[in-house]
Amino acid sequence: MTEDIVVIPGDGIGQEVIPAAVSVLETLDVDLSFTEAEAGDHVAAAGGDPLPAETHELAANADATLFGAAGESAADVILPLRAAVDSFVNVRPARTYPGIEAVRPETDIVFLRENTEGVYAGHEDRLSEDVSTLTRVVTESASRRLAEYACEYVTDRDLDGFTVAHKANVMRETDGRFRDAVFDVAEANGVETDEVLMDALAMHLALRPEEYDVVVTPNLAGDVLSDLAAGLVGGLGLLPSANLGPDRGLFEPVHGTAPDIAGQGIANPSATVLSAAMMLEHLGYDSAGQRVRDAVETVLEEGPRTPDLGGEASTEDVTAALVDALE
Amino acid sequence: MTEDIVVIPGDGIGQEVIPAAVSVLETLDVDLSFTEAEAGDHVAAAGGDPLPAETHELAANADATLFGAAGESAADVILPLRAAVDSFVNVRPARTYPGIEAVRPETDIVFLRENTEGVYAGHEDRLSEDVSTLTRVVTESASRRLAEYACEYVTDRDLDGFTVAHKANVMRETDGRFRDAVFDVAEANGVETDEVLMDALAMHLALRPEEYDVVVTPNLAGDVLSDLAAGLVGGLGLLPSANLGPDRGLFEPVHGTAPDIAGQGIANPSATVLSAAMMLEHLGYDSAGQRVRDAVETVLEEGPRTPDLGGEASTEDVTAALVDALE
Ligand SMILES: CC(C)[C@H](C(=O)O)[C@@H](O)C(=O)O
Ligand SMILES: CC(C)[C@H](C(=O)O)[C@@H](O)C(=O)O
Repeated sequence: MTEDIVVIPGDGIGQEVIPAAVSVLETLDVDLSFTEAEAGDHVAAAGGDPLPAETHELAANADATLFGAAGESAADVILPLRAAVDSFVNVRPARTYPGIEAVRPETDIVFLRENTEGVYAGHEDRLSEDVSTLTRVVTESASRRLAEYACEYVTDRDLDGFTVAHKANVMRETDGRFRDAVFDVAEANGVETDEVLMDALAMHLALRPEEYDVVVTPNLAGDVLSDLAAGLVGGLGLLPSANLGPDRGLFEPVHGTAPDIAGQGIANPSATVLSAAMMLEHLGYDSAGQRVRDAVETVLEEGPRTPDLGGEASTEDVTAALVDALE
Repeated sequence: MTEDIVVIPGDGIGQEVIPAAVSVLETLDVDLSFTEAEAGDHVAAAGGDPLPAETHELAANADATLFGAAGESAADVILPLRAAVDSFVNVRPARTYPGIEAVRPETDIVFLRENTEGVYAGHEDRLSEDVSTLTRVVTESASRRLAEYACEYVTDRDLDGFTVAHKANVMRETDGRFRDAVFDVAEANGVETDEVLMDALAMHLALRPEEYDVVVTPNLAGDVLSDLAAGLVGGLGLLPSANLGPDRGLFEPVHGTAPDIAGQGIANPSATVLSAAMMLEHLGYDSAGQRVRDAVETVLEEGPRTPDLGGEASTEDVTAALVDALE
């Protein structure tokens, strides 16, 4: 069966790392067909919608979508794309790799971030000259759906359980509901849980990241805490992510457009290639996914390396090395 | 003039560090009169309100209040106490001290956290079986008031300016308003500003904390980011904070009740003593405040040290050393 993959390079280094990932995917013995679609600042600058309806439509119907990055228009592109694939969870693993400098090399955490609501549901109003409001939404159903996934995630991987991070001491009704729903589903599935306040977790991650494995969070908490974890493992350059829905997924590096190096052909493609590995696994090609991961690890360890990792190689050099490692 | 100081030890190590700070304050040549008030879990356990009306009243009328910590009831105690002193800003400096182990010793940041609204304004509803909401509130007036303070803060200290952290790419109306109001006030005061998204800042703090000096944030962002900074400088044990209103203030260590060591007489009083120094400065006793800071630094460097800092001293030993250093 051919898998229909939509690729959306977007802006900046997205234009460099997406072709790199496609080259890597093309060396595999997996039947993938690629359709390229447009999105981002450059589309808006040309008078279009940063997320053209056609791109939205393609992502909503593809087997999977691989996304690069978008600039100023990021929120207008990535949030509707996540919705297009009906993604209820954003999976964000943060770990270090041998030989990569990191503030906290012990970090090895996967965030399972709620991906549809919280402040992102975003009903905002200007009530008066002085007062603006935002209605934060938490539903039982989205919380339970995330929790079901989290249970499956830890059970499939023989992990001990997960930690729920929240701020239910202040957001008693909304985060309280999130926490209770997640605990309830975990209990029904015989999965162990503990909990931590999101502010305390930010401190603990700096001090003792090794104490956390899988962290289940509301949307904004997951946004901030996973970026923090990225900092602890050395930056965004190596971090992949998966936005999963019931039928399809959207896979993207956690990094942005990197305007400072865009266009120079020196972007590190690792995060996007690792996102492609998550895509393969989501599509059921576990061993191909594992081979891609192994190739990334080998090249990270042995080189060549792009300048962000202290090397002098180009995106093309690294891509060629990845392809070599896979052949 | 006698300054009326209300002291609220609260729960756990609050009962140990507040008396320590009072002993230190009593050695100074400043006319302070202390009134002790009750709050916390132990009051609730005895059938009372965790924040008795009498305590609220005392704090609302004192020249300043020094608070220890509260346990499970923390939110029910500290949030109304902040409101009692009409506190619009929570000042949270995070820095390391010579000889103290830290993940990121370069960190030297002051957070100026909005202290009245955001999700803490907390209008929550259960709209249906499935849906709960929280109305996040941002006002022009609170944002401007915080910004006025931030401008004064950097101008008084001859600092270059400040950074505004927010999530206005998603919370466009509310955080957009916060950002615009703060920028507007800064511009009118000739204060330089830059901005960063709160998720990006969490990452930057792990990677390059030395790039930030003064960070102005909405309420929850300040909560999480200042705890993160606490982690980067070695934990909460040394971090003071000030909740300031137009006429009075509430001063508290950032740490909690530390149930694991409470009652053993080994709590580190430094964070509370540093909070007392902030209190002195707020009351206008700048040189007394500076002397207290110097004493804390001397004792941190030369010992004795409590177990959290690798020593074997008691709270009493450290307090005696502080008193010695001041005499
Ligand atoms: C661009 C922005 C809307 C997005 C988010 O907040 O989710 C980004 O920070 C991320 O985490 O992918
Ligand atoms: C106890 C809690 C309500 C409080 C807060 O969220 O403000 C605490 O985390 C703090 O930062 O002082």
